[in-house]
Amino acid sequence: MSQQTLGGMVLKSLTMQDIEYLAIGAAVLGSGGGGDPYLGKLMAQQAIMEKGEVPLVDVDDVPDDKLIIPSAMMGAPAVMVEKLPNGQEPEKALKAVASFFEQEVYGIISIEAGGINSCIPVYTAGRLGLPLIDCDGMGRAFPEIPMVTFSIGGVEASPMVCCDEKGNKVVIESINNAWIETLSRAVTVAWGLSSFIGLYVMDGKTLKKYAVRGTISLAMEIGRRIVKSNERKVSPVDSILEMTEGFRLFEGKVTDVQRDLTTGFVRGKAILDGIDAYRGSSATLEFQNEYLVAYQDGKSVAMVPDLITSLDRETGNPITTEHLRYGQRIVIIGMPCAAIWRTEVGLAQVGPRYFKYDIDYIPIEELAGGKGS
Amino acid sequence: MSQQTLGGMVLKSLTMQDIEYLAIGAAVLGSGGGGDPYLGKLMAQQAIMEKGEVPLVDVDDVPDDKLIIPSAMMGAPAVMVEKLPNGQEPEKALKAVASFFEQEVYGIISIEAGGINSCIPVYTAGRLGLPLIDCDGMGRAFPEIPMVTFSIGGVEASPMVCCDEKGNKVVIESINNAWIETLSRAVTVAWGLSSFIGLYVMDGKTLKKYAVRGTISLAMEIGRRIVKSNERKVSPVDSILEMTEGFRLFEGKVTDVQRDLTTGFVRGKAILDGIDAYRGSSATLEFQNEYLVAYQDGKSVAMVPDLITSLDRETGNPITTEHLRYGQRIVIIGMPCAAIWRTEVGLAQVGPRYFKYDIDYIPIEELAGGKGS
Repeated sequence: MSQQTLGGMVLKSLTMQDIEYLAIGAAVLGSGGGGDPYLGKLMAQQAIMEKGEVPLVDVDDVPDDKLIIPSAMMGAPAVMVEKLPNGQEPEKALKAVASFFEQEVYGIISIEAGGINSCIPVYTAGRLGLPLIDCDGMGRAFPEIPMVTFSIGGVEASPMVCCDEKGNKVVIESINNAWIETLSRAVTVAWGLSSFIGLYVMDGKTLKKYAVRGTISLAMEIGRRIVKSNERKVSPVDSILEMTEGFRLFEGKVTDVQRDLTTGFVRGKAILDGIDAYRGSSATLEFQNEYLVAYQDGKSVAMVPDLITSLDRETGNPITTEHLRYGQRIVIIGMPCAAIWRTEVGLAQVGPRYFKYDIDYIPIEELAGGKGS
Repeated sequence: MSQQTLGGMVLKSLTMQDIEYLAIGAAVLGSGGGGDPYLGKLMAQQAIMEKGEVPLVDVDDVPDDKLIIPSAMMGAPAVMVEKLPNGQEPEKALKAVASFFEQEVYGIISIEAGGINSCIPVYTAGRLGLPLIDCDGMGRAFPEIPMVTFSIGGVEASPMVCCDEKGNKVVIESINNAWIETLSRAVTVAWGLSSFIGLYVMDGKTLKKYAVRGTISLAMEIGRRIVKSNERKVSPVDSILEMTEGFRLFEGKVTDVQRDLTTGFVRGKAILDGIDAYRGSSATLEFQNEYLVAYQDGKSVAMVPDLITSLDRETGNPITTEHLRYGQRIVIIGMPCAAIWRTEVGLAQVGPRYFKYDIDYIPIEELAGGKGS
């Protein structure tokens, strides 16, 4: 990260190298989802090459009355890898949603932490010459539009704009966030499972109240540690767990992966056979874009909304659910979610019962605490 | 119809009675589709009660440079009967699509002839204080958005606005009319199978070139003849056939009706056992919202884009596909379609092969000519 000072204020801005770190680290926070980091990274780096470094602004430095708009991609991450954007969609969606407000846009935010959805906002901010705010709306990735801290704060997702790579644009004004999810999902499925979107317009005051702060910085630091560990040929896992207060849940070889794309999500599960300390044991990871529940020998060891992530056992690089393959050796880690998700209203929105599990949420500290690293 | 003259120009306007006739006659032209006439009739009459008679303007009287916008409902007619509109949707959709153009709207048109979609434009015109133009874009009803004469003339359906009865609004700007169909259908299915829409904005010059003219007047006259025949307790069928140059195809009792709503259309077929002159014979009517092909004893006797309509055998009242029931005694009639549909480009858009039939189009005059009334 490059830094300058102006008066007493520190101006940070995102460099090409920062994007390398961000893409990796955000995918760790993405809990198996949030999109393949590769594509988002290339887009963000392209914007920096063309337009220069993107300023990164702290949430506290955003004026209360200024307009903030999240920029994101929605759909099935597995499809995004092969259905390349034309590059105009993110700004087109952003500008269209901004046109509803008689005010200039102050900055762009990430709606979720994830390989693609942490990098796309950098691309959009860079192309529009705006700063990125150091936060997100989940502190992880989630599969559905209403699953943001902002909706707990009563922020409307509407108006929402969806753009596809062919040049189609859909503007949705809905009566609530659930209809935004239903309608944008229908559109996204109809035009081939990926959309670039703008939505959840809010002011700085609301952002300060509900944003998960520092996500971009955290993701970059996680990514940096992974890259640096790789250079020294040591495992970054302990370093990640220390930063995120997380737990090592399992180590094993992927023996089966099942996926279904028909609903506009990647739903499925992966099965692992234990290695080393976990030999003789097996694990199952269930996902809907993101990991929902991790089981060891039939018992849940971590569950949504806590973060569950799969890392390459050698390099510590995150492996998103669409890149899970037979034979991979992976480490499963779990990390506590942002505190707001553990409230009653938070769990109603993203807890295990929302995802049709007949179980009460148990925090990862209780479930996995006994075997934390 | 009430008439006044101003200078040399005849001013016609639609009365409550005209709407009774229009609803019935348009359902005859609707070829089994175009929506249940009852709901549209009530809406159009409500607008006339509240705002006064709606002026009916000839296509030739529309200035070349004026803006014309079709107003319609889309979805599965069977659902519209139970999922009542809130009444704001048609004008909301119309105004939203008009807002794309820096010009006042001159008049409203019907996109298709059909019970609901001939009456909804009267409602919209009445509420907005605009005239209705005496024409439509099909000369009948068809199930898909691009199936209008205007699209043969290169008119873009985009921008299109869809509104639902709950208060949701979706604006679609697409790269072509096929994407408008795909996206608006996805939205319509997602929010419960019915939408009010505005689309295919055009100028008077284009309207004059591609509109099917006089549809509103024709529908009203057909409706009037049915009502008058009923008052005299005689069959209106011959009178309808004479006006439309149509053919009596079959008379029988409905013995089976199959319907499937899952794709956003009403797809299915009805089977009839012959009565009187048709005793010993059977007929099958296949439909996708509208009738596509009529068979007698396995041989096609009329096919899309020619009009196929089912009438109550006693009263001559049209029976739309969603009102077909076991035991009904009906007369099947066929009528030649507008000439533009019989061109190569017309048949590519609405001919039997478009609807997945492996048959070449044969005009009804050739198929049914031998047994015309």
